[in-house]
Amino acid sequence: MNFNEKLNNKIEMVNKALKEYLAPRYPERLYEAMGYSVFAGGKRLRPVLMLSACEAVGGKEEDALPFACAMEMIHTYSLIHDDLPAMDNDDFRRGKPTCHKAFDEALAILAGDGLLTYAFEIMLNTICDRKDMNYAKAARYIAENSGTCGMLVGQVVDVESEGVSIDDKTLMYIHDNKTGGLIKASLVAGAIIGGATEDEIRDFEKIGYNIGIAFQIKDDILDVTSTSEILGKPVFSDEKNNKSTYVTLHGLENAQEDFKTLSEGAVRMIENFGKNGEFLRSYADTLINRIN
Amino acid sequence: MNFNEKLNNKIEMVNKALKEYLAPRYPERLYEAMGYSVFAGGKRLRPVLMLSACEAVGGKEEDALPFACAMEMIHTYSLIHDDLPAMDNDDFRRGKPTCHKAFDEALAILAGDGLLTYAFEIMLNTICDRKDMNYAKAARYIAENSGTCGMLVGQVVDVESEGVSIDDKTLMYIHDNKTGGLIKASLVAGAIIGGATEDEIRDFEKIGYNIGIAFQIKDDILDVTSTSEILGKPVFSDEKNNKSTYVTLHGLENAQEDFKTLSEGAVRMIENFGKNGEFLRSYADTLINRIN
Repeated sequence: MNFNEKLNNKIEMVNKALKEYLAPRYPERLYEAMGYSVFAGGKRLRPVLMLSACEAVGGKEEDALPFACAMEMIHTYSLIHDDLPAMDNDDFRRGKPTCHKAFDEALAILAGDGLLTYAFEIMLNTICDRKDMNYAKAARYIAENSGTCGMLVGQVVDVESEGVSIDDKTLMYIHDNKTGGLIKASLVAGAIIGGATEDEIRDFEKIGYNIGIAFQIKDDILDVTSTSEILGKPVFSDEKNNKSTYVTLHGLENAQEDFKTLSEGAVRMIENFGKNGEFLRSYADTLINRIN
Repeated sequence: MNFNEKLNNKIEMVNKALKEYLAPRYPERLYEAMGYSVFAGGKRLRPVLMLSACEAVGGKEEDALPFACAMEMIHTYSLIHDDLPAMDNDDFRRGKPTCHKAFDEALAILAGDGLLTYAFEIMLNTICDRKDMNYAKAARYIAENSGTCGMLVGQVVDVESEGVSIDDKTLMYIHDNKTGGLIKASLVAGAIIGGATEDEIRDFEKIGYNIGIAFQIKDDILDVTSTSEILGKPVFSDEKNNKSTYVTLHGLENAQEDFKTLSEGAVRMIENFGKNGEFLRSYADTLINRIN
């Protein structure tokens, strides 16, 4: 199998499992709303990272599948709530109406709450069924990095910083937590489930940090160097929204330089995992070279 | 120690632990908002039920303390989100401005999300630290009954039923899940942590069902028999909102009858736990006899 076939396999595996988790049942509108957002065109970045990190340390990707689905649910809940009128007030995401537009605001709030709770239910089911403390450890890492030590606090500071000029330290805090939190958690949880040693877990924390920040710098770069046709969303939106980004704080050239350093660092660390890490290495390359 | 001293001890124990969990830290506004709602006058009903159920099966209440705090956080998150303009649009709760009024809507959404995520972080920390599968089992029960098999789906159906006349089956679904979910989960999780047998767990599921439904019927009864001075909120609000309640569907007399049957059934089942269950029995009495 070549890289693309392997990637599609992983995505298919995740989509199939997500479809089962979100099969219609009472109350139907809730499952409709949750399913609508989960199947609104996400690239399954975080689940793929989790499955590949599990493989990289010699584990079986199937073992990480329930957690990979839980992670995609947590990611989706955060998008649904971020899009709400009181937050970013976005009517469209990936060209489709956002959850509160397709349904209504009350159901969007509840669908987000539902996906977050369901994610923990799935993880706790796995912990109880397999009676394996590694799953509990992985779930704890995900909880921390979704909440008080990750995505949620990043989002709080991001919301607070709206229309205010912020310093580099605050920007890095937002990026490392808001975007980096779930990316790091996906890699580390996958590695823990795959049986990683303490050293390997620390390696994946660093890889996750690098990929998370690099991913966000790339977003900031594309916003000023791409076209709206390629990106599928308006360009120069950060400038229009008066938003401090890595590019506005450091300049385009430094942003490109730092992106390169972080990406290359991540790839070098992944290479230490040898043959088992090959897929993850190639996947990191596609993230580095992405044009939208 | 008499009953009131014991009750105050339990409440104090929970409040002290909650204060530590929610001690100020960066980002301060988030912890302020979470703490504001957690300390807005809640009676700690669910934590007290959890600690007492743990004791009733011979466990130590301290063992259930982290989960009791997590439960209060889940309860509080649900109140914050229920009060939002897109949901019940309530400006006051227990005489104090609701979270989105005291802060703003974005922070209220995030404070709710934060409390829910933090609750699972606390439970997963306990599971990992004590390496005891009973905690995982209790956390799974709480996840199910907060989400897809409990509070959340009850709330979805309640929101959907607004301004529509509903049948008894739907009303019981809402009561059993929306109110009953967390009450049942508190009792069952406490019992599991205390080392309950499978039979005892089933008993607590029944006790929880009875108390949950009875609690809600009492609310419906008080709305038409009490005064706004005693209740601390407007009476006849269900009638004004055209809301189907146990009283509108069954009449006041039947509601009082069924309340009595359910309450007495719960008390009888609790009595089976003998001396260890004495506090829980007295606590159930206070719930039965509550006037507001």
